[in-house]
Amino acid sequence: MSASFERPVRIRFSHCDPAGIVFFPQYLVMTNALVEDWFNEGLHIDYAQMIAQRRVGLPIVKLDCEFSRPSQMGETITLTLHVVAIGRRSISLEIVGHCNGESRFRAKQVLVTTSLESGTSIDIPTDIASALATFAPQPDSIEAHRS
Amino acid sequence: MSASFERPVRIRFSHCDPAGIVFFPQYLVMTNALVEDWFNEGLHIDYAQMIAQRRVGLPIVKLDCEFSRPSQMGETITLTLHVVAIGRRSISLEIVGHCNGESRFRAKQVLVTTSLESGTSIDIPTDIASALATFAPQPDSIEAHRS
Amino acid sequence: MSASFERPVRIRFSHCDPAGIVFFPQYLVMTNALVEDWFNEGLHIDYAQMIAQRRVGLPIVKLDCEFSRPSQMGETITLTLHVVAIGRRSISLEIVGHCNGESRFRAKQVLVTTSLESGTSIDIPTDIASALATFAPQPDSIEAHRS
Amino acid sequence: MSASFERPVRIRFSHCDPAGIVFFPQYLVMTNALVEDWFNEGLHIDYAQMIAQRRVGLPIVKLDCEFSRPSQMGETITLTLHVVAIGRRSISLEIVGHCNGESRFRAKQVLVTTSLESGTSIDIPTDIASALATFAPQPDSIEAHRS
Repeated sequence: MSASFERPVRIRFSHCDPAGIVFFPQYLVMTNALVEDWFNEGLHIDYAQMIAQRRVGLPIVKLDCEFSRPSQMGETITLTLHVVAIGRRSISLEIVGHCNGESRFRAKQVLVTTSLESGTSIDIPTDIASALATFAPQPDSIEAHRS
Repeated sequence: MSASFERPVRIRFSHCDPAGIVFFPQYLVMTNALVEDWFNEGLHIDYAQMIAQRRVGLPIVKLDCEFSRPSQMGETITLTLHVVAIGRRSISLEIVGHCNGESRFRAKQVLVTTSLESGTSIDIPTDIASALATFAPQPDSIEAHRS
Repeated sequence: MSASFERPVRIRFSHCDPAGIVFFPQYLVMTNALVEDWFNEGLHIDYAQMIAQRRVGLPIVKLDCEFSRPSQMGETITLTLHVVAIGRRSISLEIVGHCNGESRFRAKQVLVTTSLESGTSIDIPTDIASALATFAPQPDSIEAHRS
Repeated sequence: MSASFERPVRIRFSHCDPAGIVFFPQYLVMTNALVEDWFNEGLHIDYAQMIAQRRVGLPIVKLDCEFSRPSQMGETITLTLHVVAIGRRSISLEIVGHCNGESRFRAKQVLVTTSLESGTSIDIPTDIASALATFAPQPDSIEAHRS
């Protein structure tokens, strides 16, 4: 199994809709923050500096989600991130939100490294590629994804 | 071909991120507003009343998106909604965002009718089911989706 | 009286909180959009171009609000903007949100023109200053504000 | 001096605008979360339960803010809350956001306890009133506010 990165998120008033549960785009704000934390604390790549100084962006090009159970204000959800695949210019992630052993949502995201100057995709910078190695999926987990 | 529902959205300062382009969860706030407008103006079902008085919710259970090109502040994007399938308790939609003949994103969404009292899924209420008929996919478009 | 600028806003699901009413920061997202529309359609200054090409920012430095009555999902609120004062580097606005003759909130905002390159305040550019003249408060309305 | 309540907030990509700094309504989402944390962890009143089960709301009726310096993505801002006054049905707070000894913004907020069933103001429930006593402003700080 590959390494994972995990953070808790408290479900707040501002995340919830008139039905009293998380408004689904807020889950994606949360997963964006998780990726940010993963870069800063898991990969030890300064995310803010990457965007603002290095002008390397990480836009999403593909997103597949399943929302299996609603989350209520006051709950603490654990978000767990795995790397599914690393390409030359892209990173495929799976992020699962769970609470008390129950899955709440699952998101697969493909992120692409881009130049914020030209707006076009670029190879993953070498320091980021090296940092990603720790989280690279292992042969057996790749097998699991194939089957 | 089945009927579609279309609305323009101006990309605003508040939709955009430090890269100067739409922050992707904002696209999903826009598609949520489109579904709201479609209910009110396309299906002639009062969305606010459906939620607040009838206590019928419409949570999303599945979402697949592709983000093909970034959108900039100041642009006007056209959002076009098609019904892909209607189940007993679910509605499958495809929403495309485009600008100047260029696709920006494509989202497939499965929404489920639920009771906001019990939190469980319910059959699509008959008035909503009748209204949906106008937008139901036609045999030939089903064919197109199969191939 | 000085000229005013007015736009309707439909209160949407995404604006509302678990209490079923507008979450107050959303009012400020709405007033930001109103200022954007006012620049584009009232002052005929392209707001997106001002930010992205001319690199002139318009941050808020002072905000005073009163929230008198809650707004519900499905309502259409009218937002009305008046210019209260124009300084060399600042614009003072009053924005009122009302519905069916009832005031919902009132916001006084002081915005400052800044260079997005240096981050410091700059004189209001002359084309913007000229456009603002139409909306400048008249002597009698200044009188009214003094009393 | 009265007791204060303090929490750090990391400025994230999602908080920032095309100018690369915090979009001001996001500060108010942060102060709302601070009040939530203060209830849960400072006052030991379960905020989610207060809203969802007890149906006691805490809408804002007055807000005065000054935004003195912009905050950048990647910074950690400390938010500090003081109680300025406690009424029969209202709580007046001052919240300051600061970073490296520099003030970023200051917000005065008046919150009112309401019944989410009737929508009208109610006396502060006695358990909340008791909990608030610890944070009540002391005579000398009242003096300071008078001068």
